[in-house]
Amino acid sequence: MKVKNKKFSTIWIENREVKIIDQTKLPFEFKVQKLESLNDFCTAIRNMKVRGAPLIGVTAAFGFAKSIEQNSSIINIEKCYQKLLKTRPTAVNLKWALDRIKKRLFKTIPSNRASLAIELANLIRDDDIENCKKIGHNGLKIIEQIYKKKKKPINILTHCNAGWLAAVDYGTALSPIFCANQEQIPLHIWVDETRPRNQGALLTSWELKNEKIPHTVIVDNAGGHLMQNGKVDLCLVGSDRTAMNGDVCNKIGTYLKAISAKENNIPFYVALPTSTIDRNLKKGSDIPIEIRDGKELSELSFEKSRKLLTGRIYEKKTRTFNPAFDVTPSKFITALITENGICKADFTSIKRNLKTLS
Amino acid sequence: MKVKNKKFSTIWIENREVKIIDQTKLPFEFKVQKLESLNDFCTAIRNMKVRGAPLIGVTAAFGFAKSIEQNSSIINIEKCYQKLLKTRPTAVNLKWALDRIKKRLFKTIPSNRASLAIELANLIRDDDIENCKKIGHNGLKIIEQIYKKKKKPINILTHCNAGWLAAVDYGTALSPIFCANQEQIPLHIWVDETRPRNQGALLTSWELKNEKIPHTVIVDNAGGHLMQNGKVDLCLVGSDRTAMNGDVCNKIGTYLKAISAKENNIPFYVALPTSTIDRNLKKGSDIPIEIRDGKELSELSFEKSRKLLTGRIYEKKTRTFNPAFDVTPSKFITALITENGICKADFTSIKRNLKTLS
Repeated sequence: MKVKNKKFSTIWIENREVKIIDQTKLPFEFKVQKLESLNDFCTAIRNMKVRGAPLIGVTAAFGFAKSIEQNSSIINIEKCYQKLLKTRPTAVNLKWALDRIKKRLFKTIPSNRASLAIELANLIRDDDIENCKKIGHNGLKIIEQIYKKKKKPINILTHCNAGWLAAVDYGTALSPIFCANQEQIPLHIWVDETRPRNQGALLTSWELKNEKIPHTVIVDNAGGHLMQNGKVDLCLVGSDRTAMNGDVCNKIGTYLKAISAKENNIPFYVALPTSTIDRNLKKGSDIPIEIRDGKELSELSFEKSRKLLTGRIYEKKTRTFNPAFDVTPSKFITALITENGICKADFTSIKRNLKTLS
Repeated sequence: MKVKNKKFSTIWIENREVKIIDQTKLPFEFKVQKLESLNDFCTAIRNMKVRGAPLIGVTAAFGFAKSIEQNSSIINIEKCYQKLLKTRPTAVNLKWALDRIKKRLFKTIPSNRASLAIELANLIRDDDIENCKKIGHNGLKIIEQIYKKKKKPINILTHCNAGWLAAVDYGTALSPIFCANQEQIPLHIWVDETRPRNQGALLTSWELKNEKIPHTVIVDNAGGHLMQNGKVDLCLVGSDRTAMNGDVCNKIGTYLKAISAKENNIPFYVALPTSTIDRNLKKGSDIPIEIRDGKELSELSFEKSRKLLTGRIYEKKTRTFNPAFDVTPSKFITALITENGICKADFTSIKRNLKTLS
């Protein structure tokens, strides 16, 4: 997508170097960073300079490839694989991307491994762009249908950031919104602030501003009230890991919005590339939920004279607990939007959706 | 309740002067402020130096009385009444307290009005203390019952601050918790941060710390996940206005917790003095919801070298919408806890509960 009229993606290769946008500084600073060592990649993922399930997968793939450039031995492959895998536990794309590369590397002679790894990482990146584009077109149909009935601006509520910053380009939940905007369907987006890291208020809001799509940031507490009062036509969120029964693991708070949508008869869609579907996972309750540092609650970045500072907003020693994701059972989900089409959130439909892939 | 071993309430008279604790500075600074002019009182309520339905009512009563001390004419009574009434629209205690005083003043000769007004304000204050104490004892029974079954520390989730800082003393939702703690029932409180003003993280957490009750602050997004995973035994919240059918208007986000509690079979109780029951209100959807300044989302107080500063956490010009309350329909409420006992959230039970008052 465009930033100040220049086309950008979240991760790219430039003169054989991997570059990312440091998302911890957005929207206050737009800073491009070079990732070189395996440590650089692991830190970028762990500290959420890059985040969002699809982008974590692609970043890990490039980190893997760059490390193998240095040393293509089986021992090093295994070491790098484990190190990258440990950075974040919930999004399955990480494992999916690393497995895809490792399997091929093991079948390849050492001298060819480095070039193959970078080729595969690029392929994963290209696929992600293509898949997100398709998600946009598939999801557009849902928005079009609602618009045909309502014939007034459509209010869409989204949680966290599942835009192009969460993928390589276009995004997942925001991709249909970008498409609908291009088709000139009038939209208004309710952006959940998304505590503790405020990715809604900071990232989603920035993406929508860049595309000139009307939007309003609300606290995470407000969505239920808006739904109850007819102010939401559709909920659209992303997924960090999807179980085969259609349960979806996404940013903490998604579950509360899903049960509220059900209670108020509002369609609740989850947009995801099939890379977030964990083929070995029967149900969502088996997904490991990442517990992050409590400082994410008590310390916040704020802007002072164009500089980003950190401030403590709670009293010292306040005890906190910070689970980063929750699981939304499939019964609350109207349907999934994947690159292969719209599919019900159940085992049979997901199986069928995955088959159209091969 | 005690602050550093000294007994305090949220509003009191000292040498004929009304004093409050400035709650916008808590927990970082404990600052007592004198309220003199009608303007002082109105500003304190509007800017939330005092907040919480019961305390708003008592503060308005004292503001009314102090103004009448200056001028006890019918014109001034009416002027002050209107000015105080306009400060905040949702909590009904404000109107309830003002009406109670105005009605009596109109029947009294001008020379006796000032002394009567202050007497009535003191009575409203004393009643509030007494009622909150009774709410504590009535709510204790519920906690005791759960403890008898569980025989392990009870996890209670609360939203916003409905502690002694929201009333004159003891509080509403926290009053049964303080009682249970005195009875040595082991407790652990999940404290919803409560965006945008973080009254949970700042005020509830401070109250619980002072009473040495184990507690953990979570983002508002996390409660659903905790309920889904068996980490919550009971939800206990306050009310800013209660309809005769049992619908409850409380801090924004209460509704999301209530539907999640229902979904997960967790008892959801609302503790309230009957002064929050709006006798003329049939259902919650008729309650006016206060829309507050969007800056409450984008600007936060943080501590720097023991000083409180304000910082902007969103990008400039980010559009926000800030409804301060939402309505929880009675079907999600296990029961109400009032000073008159525990009562079902329906018209007949509330009528009966109110009758025991007279």
